[in-house]
Order: sequence, then structure tokens, then C-alpha cells
Amino acid sequence: MTTKFAGIIPPLCTPFHADFTVDTSSLRRHIGMQLDAGVHGLFALGSSSEVAFLPDAQRRAVLETTVATAAGRVPVLAGCIDMTTLRVAEHVRTAEALGADAVVVTAPFYTRTHVAEVERHFRLLHEMTALPVFAYDIPVAVHTKLDPAMVLRLAEDGVLAGLKDSSGDEAGFRRIVLAKRERGLDSFAVFTGSELVVDAALAMGADGAVPGLGNVDPAGYVALYEYALAGNFEAARREQERLFQLYDITTAAPPERMGRGSAGLGAFKAAMKMRGFIDDAVLAPPQLPLDAGELGLIERKLAEAGLI
Amino acid sequence: MTTKFAGIIPPLCTPFHADFTVDTSSLRRHIGMQLDAGVHGLFALGSSSEVAFLPDAQRRAVLETTVATAAGRVPVLAGCIDMTTLRVAEHVRTAEALGADAVVVTAPFYTRTHVAEVERHFRLLHEMTALPVFAYDIPVAVHTKLDPAMVLRLAEDGVLAGLKDSSGDEAGFRRIVLAKRERGLDSFAVFTGSELVVDAALAMGADGAVPGLGNVDPAGYVALYEYALAGNFEAARREQERLFQLYDITTAAPPERMGRGSAGLGAFKAAMKMRGFIDDAVLAPPQLPLDAGELGLIERKLAEAGLI
Amino acid sequence: MTTKFAGIIPPLCTPFHADFTVDTSSLRRHIGMQLDAGVHGLFALGSSSEVAFLPDAQRRAVLETTVATAAGRVPVLAGCIDMTTLRVAEHVRTAEALGADAVVVTAPFYTRTHVAEVERHFRLLHEMTALPVFAYDIPVAVHTKLDPAMVLRLAEDGVLAGLKDSSGDEAGFRRIVLAKRERGLDSFAVFTGSELVVDAALAMGADGAVPGLGNVDPAGYVALYEYALAGNFEAARREQERLFQLYDITTAAPPERMGRGSAGLGAFKAAMKMRGFIDDAVLAPPQLPLDAGELGLIERKLAEAGLI
Amino acid sequence: MTTKFAGIIPPLCTPFHADFTVDTSSLRRHIGMQLDAGVHGLFALGSSSEVAFLPDAQRRAVLETTVATAAGRVPVLAGCIDMTTLRVAEHVRTAEALGADAVVVTAPFYTRTHVAEVERHFRLLHEMTALPVFAYDIPVAVHTKLDPAMVLRLAEDGVLAGLKDSSGDEAGFRRIVLAKRERGLDSFAVFTGSELVVDAALAMGADGAVPGLGNVDPAGYVALYEYALAGNFEAARREQERLFQLYDITTAAPPERMGRGSAGLGAFKAAMKMRGFIDDAVLAPPQLPLDAGELGLIERKLAEAGLI
Repeated sequence: MTTKFAGIIPPLCTPFHADFTVDTSSLRRHIGMQLDAGVHGLFALGSSSEVAFLPDAQRRAVLETTVATAAGRVPVLAGCIDMTTLRVAEHVRTAEALGADAVVVTAPFYTRTHVAEVERHFRLLHEMTALPVFAYDIPVAVHTKLDPAMVLRLAEDGVLAGLKDSSGDEAGFRRIVLAKRERGLDSFAVFTGSELVVDAALAMGADGAVPGLGNVDPAGYVALYEYALAGNFEAARREQERLFQLYDITTAAPPERMGRGSAGLGAFKAAMKMRGFIDDAVLAPPQLPLDAGELGLIERKLAEAGLI
Repeated sequence: MTTKFAGIIPPLCTPFHADFTVDTSSLRRHIGMQLDAGVHGLFALGSSSEVAFLPDAQRRAVLETTVATAAGRVPVLAGCIDMTTLRVAEHVRTAEALGADAVVVTAPFYTRTHVAEVERHFRLLHEMTALPVFAYDIPVAVHTKLDPAMVLRLAEDGVLAGLKDSSGDEAGFRRIVLAKRERGLDSFAVFTGSELVVDAALAMGADGAVPGLGNVDPAGYVALYEYALAGNFEAARREQERLFQLYDITTAAPPERMGRGSAGLGAFKAAMKMRGFIDDAVLAPPQLPLDAGELGLIERKLAEAGLI
Repeated sequence: MTTKFAGIIPPLCTPFHADFTVDTSSLRRHIGMQLDAGVHGLFALGSSSEVAFLPDAQRRAVLETTVATAAGRVPVLAGCIDMTTLRVAEHVRTAEALGADAVVVTAPFYTRTHVAEVERHFRLLHEMTALPVFAYDIPVAVHTKLDPAMVLRLAEDGVLAGLKDSSGDEAGFRRIVLAKRERGLDSFAVFTGSELVVDAALAMGADGAVPGLGNVDPAGYVALYEYALAGNFEAARREQERLFQLYDITTAAPPERMGRGSAGLGAFKAAMKMRGFIDDAVLAPPQLPLDAGELGLIERKLAEAGLI
Repeated sequence: MTTKFAGIIPPLCTPFHADFTVDTSSLRRHIGMQLDAGVHGLFALGSSSEVAFLPDAQRRAVLETTVATAAGRVPVLAGCIDMTTLRVAEHVRTAEALGADAVVVTAPFYTRTHVAEVERHFRLLHEMTALPVFAYDIPVAVHTKLDPAMVLRLAEDGVLAGLKDSSGDEAGFRRIVLAKRERGLDSFAVFTGSELVVDAALAMGADGAVPGLGNVDPAGYVALYEYALAGNFEAARREQERLFQLYDITTAAPPERMGRGSAGLGAFKAAMKMRGFIDDAVLAPPQLPLDAGELGLIERKLAEAGLI
């Protein structure tokens, strides 16, 4: 009666060579570290992967490497991030060809859309693929919040296999979780992307989490999940609080200097490099690099946390 | 001392077959109608083209057909609409290969960006191409307003060849126009995308306009431009007011029923079909089609305007 | 070492006569019901009181009645809701004169403000009053989110005695709670206004909650709080889930028909009337009244919940 | 067949003493300067007056002084700026008592409202006063854009006597102006608050403008209006361009340092002091004062413009 997809599914960051091609060797090492830590799935080509910065060839390299390295031990979810249905459909076909276990799709963006059109978008994509389709609710990127009633309708109709909720709306998330339980939607997998309140989401009944910070400390999130699964929410809370402190690395670069995207992803990749997961922390353009002072702050934070 | 790019440059709508491949025959006919009306350039793959809905192969078909049909009589600007630098760069290379005369680029989207990163984006793209680069200011789509000081800095440095301003901020637009004049940036071409106040923009000193409604009534906008060029702003105003009334076709479908994107583009394409410019008014998914009542309203409007 | 302010502090709704003067008899009865249910404080003139709709004379009537009815048994917090410092200051003086135990103040609104000005606003108001000052973080009303670093700075400087966080940003709320603990800000009282995730907020370490729905079911929120205080978060969760279902009354009136303010407050007041707390459910203008069908839905919900 | 209200109606800034009471002597002198320059009306207690910062007693002082100084030579419009109907109603009664010629009212704010409630707001206020009611469209302050169809409905029903449009949506403004002409709403007065495109608004058919910058250079706006009235739009454009340059004073203080409200009003008041219109440039709290460098920039701009 459990969902196939559950637990900690990190949205993998993408290590690059200096020319912005994927450093597949580092990516394999990074995935190995995640699997060793006990993660329950891998989310390739999510927002943390810099999917918005990756040309299609690089997206393919990421997904191929991820599927090959997972080697069936855990499911691989593939982000199919593009503006509207026909463009997303091409990414879905690639995900099928490369062996992903599920696809993850946002609301349309760039265009001024409407809930009826968002619903049609998911229905059309479900019709064209046998893969499970996850809805990805990320208004900070696509500027549309998924309507909870629509998500539930699509879950009941078997269109959606799951939800990754990165909207930051914890009450709206809880509405989905409660409705799932009431309506017996056992196979509908509900994941939070709110990496700073995972303990609360699990206590509410979420199936798992997709934490960007898991790239840096996968063992922490796995421990948090196992505590929650065992009903030890006090230990889960303490683990989340520890991870909350660690998250401060994402504000090493101040908002006056660069976007919150590059500050956060730059910090994750710098920390991954410092921990030996990847060789280089380069970000795709036009993102700006962290400077020496910012990197120093991150290094201190990691040392304090006992991670280096 | 005038810019190479000036006048009315319609952002071409893209006619489709039922399977959403480009109806190149209709597109050629439509372009012919635009050229016959005297337009001064063609903007392929702008927002009105449903560029956000077109897979790359269809984008290529549109641009190939546009360049071939223009046959050098007027310049062709190619929209290179994608999320960030490396993805845009691939569209720029395609535009070069297919013979476009300029490329048109927005701020990064999907990612949370920063003015320093937006500026880096334009600089990197300029470095990689010999084509003139136009900045496309369209916050309704990309959710970032271009900073006027940055636009002017890039114009002075020769990074930007022009601006298409669809921000709706007429005071900000005027700031650019006035600074262009003061600083002697003669070759920097400033176009408004605010199709309902083109007379005002031309009076302020704009080089031209990129009106979506020009797909339906190119002769109207050409007349408006010529009146303004001749200093007859009273006639320009009357022409704009006539076109303003015609623009009501874009609200035939109410906001409760569909997105403002599909209501507007659906109306343009329906009107283009009624005028015989294209064979079919189909919209790419997940946009919703207009219904019979809405099409009837549009037909009446066109008849009242003497356009059918 | 505990804060003076803790527990469940409902933001009291304001019962009106038909002429929109305060029905003080109903208000006394309503407050009596709250006190009988065991609430730990009363928040008069918060957003749920229709404070934005109350002329100053009616605000005074509300606060006088609340202070008199509380009679020192629980502290009374008084909302001092106005656009900027000098106008708020007048409400603060009234609150002092009428015997409130604390004042609750938002960021400036109507004006385009800045974090340095928001900080100055709180500092100036603290300087002029001996009453404890609570910051009220409610961006949905004032369109400015309070900066967590500023809130903490003001807490450390003794400017702020507490925070009522109705921002819906649970991660930001947790940042405050954790910093309070780390920095030993024991007397700084941190309340959530997110009435649907109170169990999670208390688990994180919040001092209490200010739930609008507490007007309808104060005993539920008091039970929830006591479960949490006893460390029984499983029971707290079940109670919160029950209250979550009850909250559906706030969507009886659909968004097409009226504002989310009047739909929510109209539902609260209708339920309060059905439970016998107040005589009439009238809303201040220009809010629209619920219709018979909507009231029927609310009645069914209350009956299902065993509240009538 | 013309409206009673037409021409340049400056939204008067409010000079203060050091204790933030109204410096009525300076206000009289300032109004005298405006009248000498030929303005066609006075808007007291608009946003530029710091109405959001003024306690009711100071609002009364402003309005009394304005009505007395105008002495019937030009009409006085009184801003009645508050959150909702009953609070606005009290300001309307004061305006009546003090002899204002019209009242100016925004959409409700602080509360989450709805177009049906906004419409009810204006209708209720119109019912309670014999004074002409102007709608004040200022989404930057109240976070609701007035619906053009609603504005026109209220104009046709005689509820609204006019509109002051500070929304920055010039196409929406033009829709109102054109509909006014088509429907013969001759007595409905349409004013733009977009002080940088007044020439364009007058060319479109606006009845006048309410320019904040008119506090600094009333003669400029009066000249602009007279050129437009005479059909000399070329001269109007040149005058507007001159005023556009002068408007740069509002960015002397950068956005990192203070809110755009205080930067703009601080600049206006500093310039008014430099021109001898008022004695002191103090701003009400919590706004921050301009520093010496910023004041120097403003002084240079005024000198360049020949205004000091």
C-alpha cells in the first residue's frame, strides 16, 4: 500500500568542466556518495541541476550518467523542464529513451497561462507517455502556483503519479496530503521541496522530500527521514535544525551582488567540492562565481558542521 | 545617421497544420501580405509566433521560411527565446546559419536572476555572434524588467544594437529614447511593443514599433508610421485609435475561460484566417481554442472595421 | 525564563449591529466563550477584527470592551494598524489609555518603503511607549515582508517584545525561532498566525499561535496547544487536522464572487453566530455578505464537526 | 460641454515644522506660487502630500489652509485616503465640512478585495455625499488596479465624476479616454498622474494632469498644457522632455539607501525649499532624509534647469 516513490530523493547538482560540458566523472562520484548515504531515489535535471542552463546535449549527458550510475538500485526521476507542451514532450521522449523511471513537469511558463490550460498540459503529456508523471510546483521559477483542486483531480484520474511541491505553501501542501489520505490515493506520491521544514512535512504525512541541500549532506536527510519513519520526530527535528544551520551557506553571497539562484547553487557546488564529491564548482553562465571571502564562509560552516 | 532598423516590424504569428507543424505555405502567404502592406522588417520567433510553444525543428522551419520569403527586401529579426545563455546561444547559432539579420534576446528566465547576471548574459551573447543583438524587454513573460541604465550602458558599449520594449512602462521607454538622443546613440534602434500607443512612442522619438496586431492589419500600422514620419501626428492618432478599437478582438474570450495569451493569439490567428492570410487558426497546446461565439464577435469586429 | 505572552491568543472578530457600530454585548459574550475555552490571551483589533474597516470610535469600543471583559485574567494585545509612524502612534496612545498589555504593529503600508525605514518605524514607536511592541508580519495586507535579520536585531535591542508571523513563510519563521533559542532571547515571544500548521510551529519551538479560526473553535486550539506542551505531537497533529477540515468554511463563497477577506471573515462570523457566540454575522462595507447556499455549507460543516 | 475639472492640478506637498505639524505659512506660500503659475486646481491630501503619514488633525490643517488659500479661484480636490468605506466616509465628511470641491478615493487596501467590492465601495461613498467623487487608480500604493470596465460603468451611472490615473498603464488610460468620447461622457474628467508622459496623455484626449513634479515647476506643466490646448504638440513635447530631465532629482538618493517614496518626496521638498516655496524640507517618519551629497545633486539639477 506504499508508493513506489518515497524517502529522500536529492535533486542532483550538475558538475561542469571549465567549458560547461558535464563532468560525468564527478557526477558519477557525486551520485555514488548519495547512494552510499542511502538516498531512496535520484532527481536528475531538477532546478538544482541548473537544468535551465543546460543545452539539450548536456541534459542528455546528465540523464544518461545518472541512469547508468543508479543501475536500477533506486528510481531515477527526470526533470522535463521547458516552456509548454510540445517542447516538454520532446524532453519526455528523451527521458523514455534514456531509461528514466518517471518524469517531472512544471506548469507552462513564459506564456500567460490559465488553470484550464495547465490541466490540459498535464493531461496531454500523460497521454503520450507510459512513464509516471510528477507535477513540479515551483512558482518562484514558473510564476504559476498549481491549484490544489486541480492536482487532486489529476491524481484521482491517474494522470499524475506524484507531486514535488517547492511552492513554500505548507498549508496548501498539507491540503494535498490530507486529501490523499481521505480519498485513498495511496499510490500518489507527495514530496516536499521545502528543505528546511522536512520534519514537519513528514509529520504531516508526506512520502518524502527532494532537498537541494541533500547534495551537500545526504546522510543528514536520510537520517531525518529514518527518524520520522520510526516515529521519532524529536530526533528528526534536531537533525532538521542542524541542516537548517548548514543552509546558511546559501547566503554567503549577498543579494546586492548576485541572484539568489547563483548564490544557492554556487554554495552547494562549492561545498560539494570541499567535501570531495566533485572536482570543480563552476556555474553555468550568466551566473556569477562566489568570491574568496564567500568561499571562506562556506568552508568555515562546513568545518563547524564536521563535514570537512 | 539613421538606424538600419526602423519602422513597422510585425512579430509574425505562426500558422500551423493540425499536427502543429508549421504551415509554411500559409506563412509565406502571410509574409507576402505583410510585405505588400509595406512593413519595414519582419520579426520571426517573437512571443506572438508562439515561440514558447514551438519545438526547435518548428522554430527552424519558421525562420527558414521567413528569410526565404523576405528575400532580402526587408531585414529579418530572429527571436532566440530560451532560459539562459548557453541555451540561447544555440538559437543564435541557428539564426546565423539560417541568415537572420539580427537576434532578439530576453533576460534569463526560470532562474532567479540579478541585474549583473542579466548584463553578463547580453555581453556573452554579443561576444559570440557578429549579428546585431536586440534586447527584448518583456517582464510579463520573463518576470524581470530590464534596467534602463543597463540597457544604455550596453548600447554605448556596442553590445546592443537595439531594444524591443514590451514592458508597458512608457516613462521608462521615454528615458531610453531621450538618452539615445542626448548621447548620440544614432545606430541604437528603439522599438516599442506597446501596440496601443505607437503614435505616442513615435512622437517621443521611437524608431519604430513591433505590433502584434500588425499581423491582422499591417496597412494600418504602416499608415500610422508614415503619418508620424511626415509629422502628421493628428492623423497618426486617428489611425491608432482605429487600431485600438480593433484590438478588442483579443478580449473576445473572457479571462475566466482561458489565458490572456491564448485569447490574444487565438484572436489574431482567427482574424488572419478570416482575412485570408492563413488557412487555419489552430493554436499550439496547451492553449485552448476560441469557441463559435467568440469567433463570431471577432468576425463582426473585422466587418465593422472594413477588413473583411 | 518563559515569556509573559504564550499559548493561544485568538484575533477576535468584531460583532456589529446593523449600522456597523460594535455590538458590545455580543463581543462580551464571544470573549467569555474564548476565556471559558481556556485561551491564554486576546488579540483585539487584528486583521480578523475587520480593523481595516473600523472607524477610530469603533476601534475604541472594541478595545474598551475587550480590556474590561478580560479583566486582567489574560493579557490583551491591541492592534495599532495604520499606514505610517505618526498615525500608528495615535493608536498606540489610545491603547495605552485603554489599558492594553501590548501593541501590535505592521510595517508601513500605502507608501513604498524600505527595510531601513521599517526598522526606524519600529524604533520610533518603541521609544514613545512603555508597552511591549509586537511586530506583525502580514505581507498579504501590507505588501512588505519583514526581514528576519531586522526582526532579530530589534529583538536583541529590546525594541520588539514579540512577533506575530502571518507571512506564511514557515522556513523564515523557523529561522526566527532557532535564532531566539541560540541567542537566548527568552522574553521574545514568537507567535504563528498560520492557523493550519500550528502543530508544526509549536514543534519547532513557537511560543504560541494567533489563529483566526480560534474564533469559531477556541477549545480545539487550546487542546492542540496543551497536547504540544505535553510533548504529545501526535495528538496535536490530529487536532490540527480536524481544525484543517473545519477551515474549509472559509471557501464556501467562491473567489469569483467575493474577496478572500470577506469569504473568510464572513464564514468565521456566520459560524460564531450559529454557535451562539454572537447575535449577527454582518460584515462591514464594502465586503459582500454570504448567500443562503454558502451559509448552508457552513452549517453542514459545523454540524459534521459536532460544533452545533 | 467641457468638464468643470480640467488642466494642471498639482498634488500639493505638505511642508512641516520640525515637530511634523503642518507649516501652514509655508503651505500658503507654496499654494500662492502654484496659483501664480496658473494651475487650474489644487489636489490636497494626495499621495504626494504624505497623506499616509499625516494624522487626521494634520490632514485637516492641510485642507483648511488649501481651501482658504484657493479662496474659490480654482477648485480644491481632497484626497480621502483610508483603508475601507467607513473610514474613508469620515474623511469625506471632513472634506465636506471644510469646503472641498471634490473628493478623491482609492480602492480599498490592507484587505484582500474584489472588483465587486471595489465597485460597492465607490457606490456607497457616492450615496453619502453630494461632492463629486474621483476614483484614484494607484496600484503601487493600494495593490489593486481599477478595472476599466468598472470605472466606465460608474462614470455612466454618475457615481464617479472623474478619474486620476496613476497606474502607469497608458493603454488602459487610453481605453477610458476613448470610451468617454464614444459614450459622450463629457462631464467625466480624466486626469493622468503619469507626470512624464503628460504630452501623450493630452494628445490622447485627457482632460488634464496631476503631476507631483508640478510642486517644483508648476509653470512648466501649465505651459505644457497650454501648448497642448493650442494644438502645438511639438512644443508640448519639448516642455515635457525638459521636465523629464528635471525629474531625475527623484533618484538622487539610490534605492539601496531608502524607499522610492522618500527619495521622490524628499527631492520634491528639497527643490521646493531651494526655490523658496517652503521653509523646510523635512519628511514625516519613518522616511529617511536626503544627505548632503544628494541635496547637492538636486541643487545642480535645479541650477542647470534655470530654476534657482
